[in-house]
Amino acid sequence: MLCNLIVWCGRRAKQDESLVKRIKVLLIMAKAQVLYDFTAEPGNKELSVREGETITLLDQTVGGGWIQVQNSSGQSGLVPEGYLQVVGDIIDSWSGAEAFTHTQQAAQDDGEWDDEWDQQSEGGYHVDGNGEEEGGASDRSTHTSSMKISLNKFSFAKGPSPEVFLLAQPLANRERLPVYMGEVGPVWLYPATPLHCVVADPKKESKLYGLKSFIEYQITPTTTSRPVNHRYKHFDWLYERLLEKFGSMVPIPPLPDKQVTGRFADDFIRMRMEQLQVWMTRMCRHPVVSLSDVFQFFLTYRDEKEWKAGKRKAERDEMVGPMIFSLIEPAAPELEPGDVEHICEQYSHFTKAMEDGIRELLNVGHTHWKRCTGPLPKEYQRIGRAFQTLSTVFSSSRYPGEDTLTDAMIAAGQTYEEIAQMVTQQPQKDLHFLMETNSEYRGLLGALPPITALHKAAGEKVKEAERLVCAGKINHTEKLSMKQRLSSMSYTLQAEMNHFHSNRIYDYNRVMQLYLQEQADFYQQIADKLRGALRQFTTL
Amino acid sequence: MLCNLIVWCGRRAKQDESLVKRIKVLLIMAKAQVLYDFTAEPGNKELSVREGETITLLDQTVGGGWIQVQNSSGQSGLVPEGYLQVVGDIIDSWSGAEAFTHTQQAAQDDGEWDDEWDQQSEGGYHVDGNGEEEGGASDRSTHTSSMKISLNKFSFAKGPSPEVFLLAQPLANRERLPVYMGEVGPVWLYPATPLHCVVADPKKESKLYGLKSFIEYQITPTTTSRPVNHRYKHFDWLYERLLEKFGSMVPIPPLPDKQVTGRFADDFIRMRMEQLQVWMTRMCRHPVVSLSDVFQFFLTYRDEKEWKAGKRKAERDEMVGPMIFSLIEPAAPELEPGDVEHICEQYSHFTKAMEDGIRELLNVGHTHWKRCTGPLPKEYQRIGRAFQTLSTVFSSSRYPGEDTLTDAMIAAGQTYEEIAQMVTQQPQKDLHFLMETNSEYRGLLGALPPITALHKAAGEKVKEAERLVCAGKINHTEKLSMKQRLSSMSYTLQAEMNHFHSNRIYDYNRVMQLYLQEQADFYQQIADKLRGALRQFTTL
Repeated sequence: MLCNLIVWCGRRAKQDESLVKRIKVLLIMAKAQVLYDFTAEPGNKELSVREGETITLLDQTVGGGWIQVQNSSGQSGLVPEGYLQVVGDIIDSWSGAEAFTHTQQAAQDDGEWDDEWDQQSEGGYHVDGNGEEEGGASDRSTHTSSMKISLNKFSFAKGPSPEVFLLAQPLANRERLPVYMGEVGPVWLYPATPLHCVVADPKKESKLYGLKSFIEYQITPTTTSRPVNHRYKHFDWLYERLLEKFGSMVPIPPLPDKQVTGRFADDFIRMRMEQLQVWMTRMCRHPVVSLSDVFQFFLTYRDEKEWKAGKRKAERDEMVGPMIFSLIEPAAPELEPGDVEHICEQYSHFTKAMEDGIRELLNVGHTHWKRCTGPLPKEYQRIGRAFQTLSTVFSSSRYPGEDTLTDAMIAAGQTYEEIAQMVTQQPQKDLHFLMETNSEYRGLLGALPPITALHKAAGEKVKEAERLVCAGKINHTEKLSMKQRLSSMSYTLQAEMNHFHSNRIYDYNRVMQLYLQEQADFYQQIADKLRGALRQFTTL
Repeated sequence: MLCNLIVWCGRRAKQDESLVKRIKVLLIMAKAQVLYDFTAEPGNKELSVREGETITLLDQTVGGGWIQVQNSSGQSGLVPEGYLQVVGDIIDSWSGAEAFTHTQQAAQDDGEWDDEWDQQSEGGYHVDGNGEEEGGASDRSTHTSSMKISLNKFSFAKGPSPEVFLLAQPLANRERLPVYMGEVGPVWLYPATPLHCVVADPKKESKLYGLKSFIEYQITPTTTSRPVNHRYKHFDWLYERLLEKFGSMVPIPPLPDKQVTGRFADDFIRMRMEQLQVWMTRMCRHPVVSLSDVFQFFLTYRDEKEWKAGKRKAERDEMVGPMIFSLIEPAAPELEPGDVEHICEQYSHFTKAMEDGIRELLNVGHTHWKRCTGPLPKEYQRIGRAFQTLSTVFSSSRYPGEDTLTDAMIAAGQTYEEIAQMVTQQPQKDLHFLMETNSEYRGLLGALPPITALHKAAGEKVKEAERLVCAGKINHTEKLSMKQRLSSMSYTLQAEMNHFHSNRIYDYNRVMQLYLQEQADFYQQIADKLRGALRQFTTL
């Protein structure tokens, strides 16, 4: 069992195609159980689901960490894949490792599964079999396979399984991820110069003589100042790699966008670019993620050959899932399991409370946005027009001395029309960043429950350790080792939460200031405009 | 016929009671035809009706110039009485003068009809027959009778009948209403010192040992500085007198309030007092109305005896309806009927256009008011609370250095709650006056169509004059007299419209300045508040 769990991460094999297709169908129509409550963000095509609910998986190829599902009432929508556990009887009818090898192969044989991602198949044309020139077989398979893998992480038990790390053999000499005791408690080691990168210059590219087109973004890291080009599907590949490798300890936020239609509209491209920038910035700010081989490779590969080789290498990485904790070496005394449990509970509680707070802010922000871009400016416009209409009527009176009043009323009317325009444009200037930042944190928080669940499960395993010793399943040394490893996990969690908190304080301080500044400027501008209109009237 | 028309204004007679009751029922349930389009103001219990529509009169005792009607679809609501013409076959089955004498008597015999106006009948108690101590018989009859009279003005022809004046005998020496040629054209003679009065100090009074209670307002004119007390029903009596006497040439706006329930709530009393002040101020500003005997009497009567005598005298005034034009002596050359028609058309067009403009402004104002006191502040409050909730969550993190952020977020949240409060209160500070002024002008404009219709009808009569001469119905001198009287009417209309325009320019100039100033202050305060909240955050 443990063996299987480790094995599936790297294996590749050729298999009977008809068998593969059967599995694919089974997996596509699979049922899944919901692991955590998820509340849909309005207007975002998401579906609210409750812990324990059984749902049908409609489309696992949506990407960005999202899956299209249908609930028992027939409502469908998107749910984060980390919140789902594929129901046992479908997966269990195949031995784990084999089943996943099969599905990876299935994806390899089906180019269009992958390509429908960010390419437009014009005129109903579909590329078949091996017709893809970019990235080769491994490239074509990545999305589908990694999607299955990340689902699979939670498919053998409720939540991820910590045994893989707790009972693993000590590692040979490899890279280490240091956790230090800082002023605020356990902290990661931060690089002296923070990494940053700029996502810019989206270009529509095409291949297969124009039959397929896609958008390529230019990403320039501060380290090399040399731009690399990436399509959305490459970001998604990176997301899957980071989720697989670091998802047990670092909340990897989903890629911010999952829109499939209208991909070539300028507004959409600008928005997606902005969101990719936000996502990349978040990853750059993480000391472990930003320094990782796969992330550096994504930012610095030199040509297609290097890209293909690097991809294959990253996909073969065995230091993924809970095994990542093997790299942790906390410079601190070992924690008692009780303390670990307590710390974990506290983070879970915080995560849940912040999720609730953000959900409410996003809800009211969404409502407010709709009002500010809909009925409110329409009213200001109508007020402005009503003033102007009255002014026109007045000027028809032929009564001498109307002019000062009618001119002033026209000006007042125009002022309200301008205010209407300002009101419509304002959310883009302030509410937008407030919403984006909170959406991003919602994504980060959404990636935390599997992490705390893993810690909780590890804690429970360690509690069982005594019984396992008695039953002769592990020896005393292994029990002590488990306890020490649990302590390492907990330091990691604390370092990660401290990273989260310091970033959060910085981000919320920044976004609140930006919001308040923009709002103050907005109201000041309206006040100034109204005073300008007022001056047009004769003093009484 | 002409004789009857003049006669009904003053006569009083005792009649068979059963006959009287039959007439009353006929009149109460009477059908009426709509003379002019009327569009209901939203939220005001009014009913939109179209010219030519036949409606049922449900309640003529509503007061303030309003009648409760039902249309053919069964919808009911209030319509200004000046817009209705009681359908001929009910009135015509009785000789005009007699019918109205009957109905006046009917009202005299029914004290509670009158009293249910602004008195509360506590515990279902009703005063019967002659039990009323205040104002005596003529007081008790006034409302019902005058309501019938003002309806009757338009019941013998479509619109008021101008013959009463055009063919009247020249008057013996009496008071005159001069119309001068001013810079802007024909104008009234304005008094050197404008009259003003203050409506204040509403007191709940009662009579019949507390079984009936009412509100008495104190009205103090600048001329005497001596306050007089009046109940709402006295204002209504004054309204009816002014409408009867000047309604053919001066737009008498309806009394602003027609609410019957909740009459003793403080808010309602304050609002009614404010609206009575607005109405009295408007009447004081009119040079003809303010100087009239009835208006002066209302403001200066000394005791109950003088009140009763003055009321009877005013009710016996024969110089009412179109006869008022006999008092006009324009100091200007006689106008040709074609010019009269043209001037009249122009005013009608202006009136209609301004009514439309005001209706739109009132509609959007009403919508905006609802938003500003409903969903909009609720949203600001929710935004404020969401910030505070997040702040509370943040402060639970136990991460060092949260305080500056959480304190600032609390302050920002409270600021948005304060903004919510400001938004809710703002309409009362600015939109209120904009709406009140426009509602008042809507009332004034609503009283203009009968005036222009009277002029139009007079113009048509004068056109017919040649034929009447040929038919031997009038002689040549009478024809010339009719033409001269039409010219006087037209000068009156012009003087009145010039009065309207100069007041309008003043009023709109004032209300627009007040609105813009309050709005500018409001937005400035919000901007300042937001800057205050912003300063709480640490500078990045």
